[in-house]
Amino acid sequence: MSVLLEFAMFPTDKGESISAYVSKIIQMIRESGVTYQLTPMGTVIETETIAEALAIVQQSYEVLELDCDRVYSSLKFDIRKGKSKCMTKKITSVENIIGEVNK
Amino acid sequence: MSVLLEFAMFPTDKGESISAYVSKIIQMIRESGVTYQLTPMGTVIETETIAEALAIVQQSYEVLELDCDRVYSSLKFDIRKGKSKCMTKKITSVENIIGEVNK
Amino acid sequence: MSVLLEFAMFPTDKGESISAYVSKIIQMIRESGVTYQLTPMGTVIETETIAEALAIVQQSYEVLELDCDRVYSSLKFDIRKGKSKCMTKKITSVENIIGEVNK
Amino acid sequence: MSVLLEFAMFPTDKGESISAYVSKIIQMIRESGVTYQLTPMGTVIETETIAEALAIVQQSYEVLELDCDRVYSSLKFDIRKGKSKCMTKKITSVENIIGEVNK
Repeated sequence: MSVLLEFAMFPTDKGESISAYVSKIIQMIRESGVTYQLTPMGTVIETETIAEALAIVQQSYEVLELDCDRVYSSLKFDIRKGKSKCMTKKITSVENIIGEVNK
Repeated sequence: MSVLLEFAMFPTDKGESISAYVSKIIQMIRESGVTYQLTPMGTVIETETIAEALAIVQQSYEVLELDCDRVYSSLKFDIRKGKSKCMTKKITSVENIIGEVNK
Repeated sequence: MSVLLEFAMFPTDKGESISAYVSKIIQMIRESGVTYQLTPMGTVIETETIAEALAIVQQSYEVLELDCDRVYSSLKFDIRKGKSKCMTKKITSVENIIGEVNK
Repeated sequence: MSVLLEFAMFPTDKGESISAYVSKIIQMIRESGVTYQLTPMGTVIETETIAEALAIVQQSYEVLELDCDRVYSSLKFDIRKGKSKCMTKKITSVENIIGEVNK
């Protein structure tokens, strides 16, 4: 199974500059060993079960919980049975049709 | 703590009519006893911990898993320490400022 | 055509209490005459074209623009050709299968 | 002003394989000249006004409209006054704190 999760999570009680908080979450994800990609609007991770992905969401909140009174998060899942490595395959399948992207 | 979660989850391999699948998820949520509200675009639940909300997400996927090969989900969290019953209070706080809505 | 749009839009540079800003957006939507429903996590509107829905998004930003340096928004669309009044029909179609919800 | 928009848009009446439809949208975005990045879960674009970003959303729907009876889309905006080139700066600001990511 391939579970792709794209998510952003940030405090809304800390003013405009939140990169210090976001960085703590990325650091936790990087250390977790999960396959991930940081984008300008969030982080994409790929796991083999939905439970693993949800555990990363919970741990992300725990990273912020001590310091932040209000936290917002936006997430989306694309879950496929019988698939793997969709993180790279999804972009490749577009490039197979229209040629190179992200030049 | 108040954890508000708004989410939609549906199969993308079953064609245009998906209310049978969505209904199974709502039925599970209704039976779970969690505070919930069905909207035209998803379901809002309120829990006291993020773990409880994530468990509902996992159970929603499990409802679809047997029948569906591809599942999409869009979610957002608003998590506040030291608050409760935000499900009703958020609409009331708007109405306190601009008067009745949802007439 | 039925265009259902669920969205939340709020400043992230104004601290934890944002109901004054959100209220201004709801007031604009209420005065616009569009079919809408305020939920605990956002607002659902239904329009007949995507252009009308996107105009509401732009006007929502314009309501905040003067006062806010940073604005976040999360949105989802469900767009169906040859349909109308999906705002009420979607909940009814679930209730036809599993009985009353939102008691 | 920097308008960052991350979005995914796809038909839900075409079964599990949707890369042909998604590719048409990416091709339109690539030809539009807007700054963009394809990710495994959507596309991020950066524009100088919200109107430009919303025009890309409308054109994306128009790409699908002819062939598809039902279209779903999930979007998020991060809009900042007095900023530019946030598409690259947001990742750099994280890397300045915790070192290289996306290895």
